[in-house]
Amino acid sequence: MAKKLYFYYSAMNAGKSTTLLQSSYNYIERGMQTLLFAPIIDERFEGPTIYSRIGLKQKAIGYDSSFSFFEHVQNEKTNKKDLKCILVDEAHFLSKEQVAQLVEIANKLDVAVLTYGLRSDFLGEAFEGSKYLLAWAEELVEIKTICHCGRKATMNVRVDEEGTPVTQGTQVEVLGKASYISVCMKHFIDMVPEMDKYAFEAETTTV
Amino acid sequence: MAKKLYFYYSAMNAGKSTTLLQSSYNYIERGMQTLLFAPIIDERFEGPTIYSRIGLKQKAIGYDSSFSFFEHVQNEKTNKKDLKCILVDEAHFLSKEQVAQLVEIANKLDVAVLTYGLRSDFLGEAFEGSKYLLAWAEELVEIKTICHCGRKATMNVRVDEEGTPVTQGTQVEVLGKASYISVCMKHFIDMVPEMDKYAFEAETTTV
Amino acid sequence: MAKKLYFYYSAMNAGKSTTLLQSSYNYIERGMQTLLFAPIIDERFEGPTIYSRIGLKQKAIGYDSSFSFFEHVQNEKTNKKDLKCILVDEAHFLSKEQVAQLVEIANKLDVAVLTYGLRSDFLGEAFEGSKYLLAWAEELVEIKTICHCGRKATMNVRVDEEGTPVTQGTQVEVLGKASYISVCMKHFIDMVPEMDKYAFEAETTTV
Amino acid sequence: MAKKLYFYYSAMNAGKSTTLLQSSYNYIERGMQTLLFAPIIDERFEGPTIYSRIGLKQKAIGYDSSFSFFEHVQNEKTNKKDLKCILVDEAHFLSKEQVAQLVEIANKLDVAVLTYGLRSDFLGEAFEGSKYLLAWAEELVEIKTICHCGRKATMNVRVDEEGTPVTQGTQVEVLGKASYISVCMKHFIDMVPEMDKYAFEAETTTV
Repeated sequence: MAKKLYFYYSAMNAGKSTTLLQSSYNYIERGMQTLLFAPIIDERFEGPTIYSRIGLKQKAIGYDSSFSFFEHVQNEKTNKKDLKCILVDEAHFLSKEQVAQLVEIANKLDVAVLTYGLRSDFLGEAFEGSKYLLAWAEELVEIKTICHCGRKATMNVRVDEEGTPVTQGTQVEVLGKASYISVCMKHFIDMVPEMDKYAFEAETTTV
Repeated sequence: MAKKLYFYYSAMNAGKSTTLLQSSYNYIERGMQTLLFAPIIDERFEGPTIYSRIGLKQKAIGYDSSFSFFEHVQNEKTNKKDLKCILVDEAHFLSKEQVAQLVEIANKLDVAVLTYGLRSDFLGEAFEGSKYLLAWAEELVEIKTICHCGRKATMNVRVDEEGTPVTQGTQVEVLGKASYISVCMKHFIDMVPEMDKYAFEAETTTV
Repeated sequence: MAKKLYFYYSAMNAGKSTTLLQSSYNYIERGMQTLLFAPIIDERFEGPTIYSRIGLKQKAIGYDSSFSFFEHVQNEKTNKKDLKCILVDEAHFLSKEQVAQLVEIANKLDVAVLTYGLRSDFLGEAFEGSKYLLAWAEELVEIKTICHCGRKATMNVRVDEEGTPVTQGTQVEVLGKASYISVCMKHFIDMVPEMDKYAFEAETTTV
Repeated sequence: MAKKLYFYYSAMNAGKSTTLLQSSYNYIERGMQTLLFAPIIDERFEGPTIYSRIGLKQKAIGYDSSFSFFEHVQNEKTNKKDLKCILVDEAHFLSKEQVAQLVEIANKLDVAVLTYGLRSDFLGEAFEGSKYLLAWAEELVEIKTICHCGRKATMNVRVDEEGTPVTQGTQVEVLGKASYISVCMKHFIDMVPEMDKYAFEAETTTV
């Protein structure tokens, strides 16, 4: 029976990795096997590791942009008959091709695919991986967190050591040395000029 | 108080327009005013009209790619103090700029913004409007419908008069003379070769 | 394959019946058959009818407290091979026994069961049907509506002709001559003294 | 501004306590304070402790059936200006009175209330606390877990040392020496005769 592709999305620091590790734990507790994937780009730690701020960590299989999820899972499945679920951390870093492979894994290999990631970067721009996960996942599930004002946080702001918003730089620093805070849209607009630019300074439209 | 941007997404023929008209009705019944928007591109009917297959219809304000939602709503609000909500049909056709304006309407004009649209087109490709609604909306809500197999339908297939899948053509025919059926991802893969291509024939990746 | 029991819950006047009729329409449009059920207690109209404030209506099979859903659906299914879904309006009026039958219909007869109803009555008390639908339904889905203050409405207040809250009377007048408004919890507490009583005047506890 | 009462519900062993501890962590990380509550009935550990199977634990304030949440939170709030959220574990054990107090805390003391608990016991019967949380919470959020068959688990089965279902005993053993497994409704019906009894052997109805 075909399984589903899930995308658990949220702002930074909501507990995505905790939820991922808990879900994997639940599968294993019930006698099913899982595989964990994390991007190699994450250099916070030695080797690909899924790390939760609350104090949990676990080794994972590393992936970069040339990694074939479909091939890897297909191979693993010949050995592990009980492989029922794969879980992908930082899934906003996936390519379109890789998200399509996850779709195929769920529907052709009958393995549930749980992905966890951000929706937009520090300038509000959509990530490639999230764009296709949001378009194709059979289930979109929000992991909620809060802005300092108490409203739900949905956006990410990059800050320097003094806590001042940074609005220059590349998308991939997301997991480098930069710090991030998660805020509601109202505070994102206040702190980052990009949303105003998108709304009022566009030269061209794309319909 | 800042209001929210909602994106009600679903496959074709799920009842998006019915839900839109019901929500507008609810606001008006409680003494609040609304504005309805529909794309001018929809030539099914005379003038911009929101039409529900179940038998409801209502005139709407037409928008094309050069339409400024922010300006329009800001002006209307000076007249209508009770304007509390705007509702946008076929919101996948919005430009990035227009979605950013909807974000600003919710957060600066304190008007709730309810948008309704598809996630992906007949080849599985993401729409521009949906890409940014999925990235920025404070609430993503699915309107469910079913595949002919009984599973949830999440994808759209364009079919000709004989019901054969069509995999050539432009995205905007979506609202022209083409017919569509909504299917689950498994049947989408069976009927449309594009998802296999995305997964296994990509030359380049985009991380 | 076992199907699911769904409970679509909301406050009064949110559009539950509209959603029910749309969902039935979707099934039929895809070549599947449905059965609609409405309580006989509803005397607003001639015969059991599902009526939507927005202008839709449709005949339904009437049920009272002695009606056996399981027997009825089992019989119908021998004739209608394509019976894939039943839809139950005003489902808060169901008995525990009847909700259990709906569970069995989904799991033993492989027919999807979509129920629509309120969570609590005009004094905040839980309905018998809702109590068990909320406990057993595989999917709980909220149909949102708004309070006059703009917040989400989750509670129901009975009002007289002058719009004054009524806090005396029986639960079943819900569908009689009484009028109702749907409000957020904050306004419910302001308008109806019961919640304060539940919180601060209880003589006994029930753990 | 009034805050909301949330009920995070799930079957046993889904990760409710992990989610609770993560949410508390998120509040504290953003400079807000929280209070944690756990039932004294839980004798698994010394003192009231919120324990997560995945390896997290934290001390909590104990509550029994005579505990006044409203009074406690009101007092705490005079000292802690930054108290923004309380989190209640095993919330199915609450009394109606206590759930009503949580409603008042959210709406009158402007403190968010996050509760975590089961919907039904080992015989499928609704818990008192869950009955009113499901009726009154402004947000119902499911924490998903899986049955051994791969479907979503929504029901709880009590088992003895050999893993045989137990269908005799009291509701409160839930947290005693009994073991539990979480299953989908189809497997619950197969393992526990109660649902069939509810559906087909009822002598009286309760509409």
